[in-house]
Amino acid sequence: MDNPVPRARGLMFVWLVGASQVLGLASVVLTAVWMGHYSGGFAWDGSRREFNVHPLCMVLGLVFLQGDAILVYRVFRNEAKRNVKLLHGIIHLLALIASIVGIVAVFDNHNAAKIQHMYSLHGWCGMGTLVLFCIQWVMGLLFFLFPVASSRLRALYLPIHVFCGLALLIMAIGTCLLGITEKLLFSIMSTYSQFPPEGVLANTLGIVLVCFGVLLGYLITKEEYRRPPNPEEESLSVHFKTLTEGRSPTTP
Amino acid sequence: MDNPVPRARGLMFVWLVGASQVLGLASVVLTAVWMGHYSGGFAWDGSRREFNVHPLCMVLGLVFLQGDAILVYRVFRNEAKRNVKLLHGIIHLLALIASIVGIVAVFDNHNAAKIQHMYSLHGWCGMGTLVLFCIQWVMGLLFFLFPVASSRLRALYLPIHVFCGLALLIMAIGTCLLGITEKLLFSIMSTYSQFPPEGVLANTLGIVLVCFGVLLGYLITKEEYRRPPNPEEESLSVHFKTLTEGRSPTTP
Repeated sequence: MDNPVPRARGLMFVWLVGASQVLGLASVVLTAVWMGHYSGGFAWDGSRREFNVHPLCMVLGLVFLQGDAILVYRVFRNEAKRNVKLLHGIIHLLALIASIVGIVAVFDNHNAAKIQHMYSLHGWCGMGTLVLFCIQWVMGLLFFLFPVASSRLRALYLPIHVFCGLALLIMAIGTCLLGITEKLLFSIMSTYSQFPPEGVLANTLGIVLVCFGVLLGYLITKEEYRRPPNPEEESLSVHFKTLTEGRSPTTP
Repeated sequence: MDNPVPRARGLMFVWLVGASQVLGLASVVLTAVWMGHYSGGFAWDGSRREFNVHPLCMVLGLVFLQGDAILVYRVFRNEAKRNVKLLHGIIHLLALIASIVGIVAVFDNHNAAKIQHMYSLHGWCGMGTLVLFCIQWVMGLLFFLFPVASSRLRALYLPIHVFCGLALLIMAIGTCLLGITEKLLFSIMSTYSQFPPEGVLANTLGIVLVCFGVLLGYLITKEEYRRPPNPEEESLSVHFKTLTEGRSPTTP
């Protein structure tokens, strides 16, 4: 008979991952409804409708896809490491593409409307997050997918890569919240305090994003959801352990 | 002769803690300068000057003091556990007092100016963070300082307490960034895009808060900065380990 404790824990993991996906998808849908229904829809003509592509792409790319790219290490923790790495890299590539489309949309719109770039805290945090995300992606590619660095360097870099990944996800969510506040104050400042549907919807989007971040953070940092040691991978990485004095580099 | 590797690591820890304190103090000073110099100073009369007490108290309480209350477990990781717990609880109590003064200031000001309460995303996130912070503080007090719960419950709750502590610090920082954006758009919306000193100062405050959060997150989660196992504490908590299957509850 199976031990009921690990089974209950496994079930809890499935429920938590399911809840994270519901929250992630809800954040994308709420952004699409906000921009599509309350803010005039989407276009690619420099207008406000091109601006609307920006929030959608950023929430989709830097939050939902980035979060899921990290989560694959927990969801597929019993699959072959190389395949999981590949999936991690591919989802991050999709996140990068979505983010670049999103950033081009807002720069196009600002140019067309002759609005100054990069003056707000949202702009500063967003650009910082995107630049660091690009660096993290390239470094991850070089170190882990096409390993050009030595084993020692990889072992040293892995915990930094893992920490920065979660930090970037949190920074992306924080930047989205700033964007929500900015957009609401630019468009409905005079009525925001009367709880109009647009304001309530956007606030709800913000809370959903926070919940997504908290749940992802829990799933990613919880010890028992980490990748279990694999004998074959272990034999390859025994010397890493002695170098890092901590967790095995096979379990990011 | 001492081993130079642990010494270098110890030195790095001291530098990182020092940098975190510089960033934390800088965030309090920048907030005080912003409110004191650019926003009319401080008072307790329901006016905008009473509102100005709010950002200062929240940055001091929910960010700087809350961060340092968590950090004591790393800085004093070789001191007696009971003393560190006490310090952790006392600094959190100061954080709680500062936060309550801050929240009273903004409610007083909104009442006097007949401004609606709790309509913005900043308000939603801030109230959520403060309520959860109070619950976390009371739970910590009951579970760990005056342990009324059983050892088994304490061992189960500890990882949740640790995770929630860091999550609340991040939520507090995110809420401050939202407050900065709100305040700037309410007071200097028309000139914000021309990089006025007030805007640049407030944006810089936001970036300093982000850096403080990232550094604290690194110091708190890094394995080698955790409290080393203590033989006496270990003998008391051996049975916790078997219950939690993870980290010892003596090393939060």
